[in-house]
Amino acid sequence: MLNVLFSAKPQAWDAYQAPLSDAFAKAGLAVALARDHAPAKTDYIVFAPNGPVRDFAPYVNTKAVLSLWAGVETVVDNPTLTQPLCRLVDPGLTRGMVEWVTGHVLRHHLGMDAHILGQDGIWRDEISPPLAAERPVTILGIGALGAACGQALAGLGFAVTGWSRSPKDVPGLRCLHGAAGLQEALRAAQIVVTLLPQTADTQNILDAQNLALLAPGACVINPGRGPLIDDAALLQALDSGQIAHATLDVFRREPLPADHPYWAHPQVTVTPHIAATTRPETAAKIIAENIRRGEAGLPFLNVVDRQLGY
Amino acid sequence: MLNVLFSAKPQAWDAYQAPLSDAFAKAGLAVALARDHAPAKTDYIVFAPNGPVRDFAPYVNTKAVLSLWAGVETVVDNPTLTQPLCRLVDPGLTRGMVEWVTGHVLRHHLGMDAHILGQDGIWRDEISPPLAAERPVTILGIGALGAACGQALAGLGFAVTGWSRSPKDVPGLRCLHGAAGLQEALRAAQIVVTLLPQTADTQNILDAQNLALLAPGACVINPGRGPLIDDAALLQALDSGQIAHATLDVFRREPLPADHPYWAHPQVTVTPHIAATTRPETAAKIIAENIRRGEAGLPFLNVVDRQLGY
Repeated sequence: MLNVLFSAKPQAWDAYQAPLSDAFAKAGLAVALARDHAPAKTDYIVFAPNGPVRDFAPYVNTKAVLSLWAGVETVVDNPTLTQPLCRLVDPGLTRGMVEWVTGHVLRHHLGMDAHILGQDGIWRDEISPPLAAERPVTILGIGALGAACGQALAGLGFAVTGWSRSPKDVPGLRCLHGAAGLQEALRAAQIVVTLLPQTADTQNILDAQNLALLAPGACVINPGRGPLIDDAALLQALDSGQIAHATLDVFRREPLPADHPYWAHPQVTVTPHIAATTRPETAAKIIAENIRRGEAGLPFLNVVDRQLGY
Repeated sequence: MLNVLFSAKPQAWDAYQAPLSDAFAKAGLAVALARDHAPAKTDYIVFAPNGPVRDFAPYVNTKAVLSLWAGVETVVDNPTLTQPLCRLVDPGLTRGMVEWVTGHVLRHHLGMDAHILGQDGIWRDEISPPLAAERPVTILGIGALGAACGQALAGLGFAVTGWSRSPKDVPGLRCLHGAAGLQEALRAAQIVVTLLPQTADTQNILDAQNLALLAPGACVINPGRGPLIDDAALLQALDSGQIAHATLDVFRREPLPADHPYWAHPQVTVTPHIAATTRPETAAKIIAENIRRGEAGLPFLNVVDRQLGY
């Protein structure tokens, strides 16, 4: 019998208890899933950064910490964490992200807000958007999520450029990398989507200088991580017109405080970190599979490189 | 030298003159393109229903009428029209329609309006939409436009059903047909997109009875033709909650009068017949190709079946 500790918010327990139990049974694992195993007797931790476990030192026999979240930046530097840490790479999460990103790119591409907000009885049929083929979209970060989003957009006809720190090749995308590639990727982009991991290198990657490289009137869509954006620079670029609109799903502080200027800004749409939510059914299968692998002596999937931070 | 008469609104002339001249030259055709050829000396008519030509009887030597529009319902019953009538099946128009339909389906799927209209500082992260795979979408009409939209949506993971009058097979879609198939296609659909041609059979296809078959709280998206919808029944279904939202691009009367209840209804988004606009560059190529075929003795492409009406 394996002791699996569930360390996340109570609502997550309600959502995950049944799917995890199902997934363990289907994987042939005999598991005692609970929120209160004794640390020294805990085999695995199913972990969210906002749950009760913050100090991993007492978990001396724990074989792995299995994140419920794709982003691990709030735990990767925890000095007590010596156990392997696995990110959640959930196909449901990827699908959700593709849907959210594709939807908001099309929203900005089609200029939907003018219609949604402007039902004033005036028939304005003069202006058609260009076709997607003439709309350059840049995705910063072409890991699992960014690559899937880029390919979905390319499939709809958009001219998609993907950028990553190190060279990558994603079919259907113009792929650039490194510092020089970043300038080239941003230059004249009309829609930019930020899907980079949060590291020291990616902090404020959309700063005043880089925002100025985009096409005048570009849109910024951030479903990645709040610190990818220099908030003051973005607000200034919105006010100057360099950026026409920003749709932001993630923030330095969440929930975004009610008095943050983003909420009131007419050219900003705040969404409450919903772009890609972990879906209990698909996530539970991934976690069960990683425990099965651990018990079978196989390497864990999606182990975080503590040096790189993701 | 071929005399090609351009009969559309003056703005269309401004948009089409250069692309058509280019396309004729590239097709190796010597054409005099003008807005005022003598009827008996007119070889072809490039035609929009809102242009000056309404009586085709004097065009005794005209080999074909080449529509600038995909929909031909306002001309197909014209008794003076004895010449072959060709619809415009423009890949640019199809791409534009796919972008518009995919965007608005995702908008409703993701519940975007709540965020676009509700920037009130309150962080509501409780509710995530289901994944697209759990969102049944039905497309009424799987001709060139409907099939392309259905396939794009299926590519994003939506569970897509397509319905047509006669049997069709579109890869990736569950295809139904006929009267019994219509009931099955509508039953429990959460998003329905109407892309049927306008004929006597398709008038009011979304009436009270058929709207009641949809899932409670379904959304209706009509980029096809206004008369596909029974307007009174739709307004009633919106008020009862059976239909949560309607996004309507086409209407019985266009421009939609400013006092029409659709404009003021909080659950209706009116867009001004922009879902798929003909793009002059791509449309000009199609028209030139049809003239080239006519001159080479080949059958015209996309000739309208006057019996069927499309």
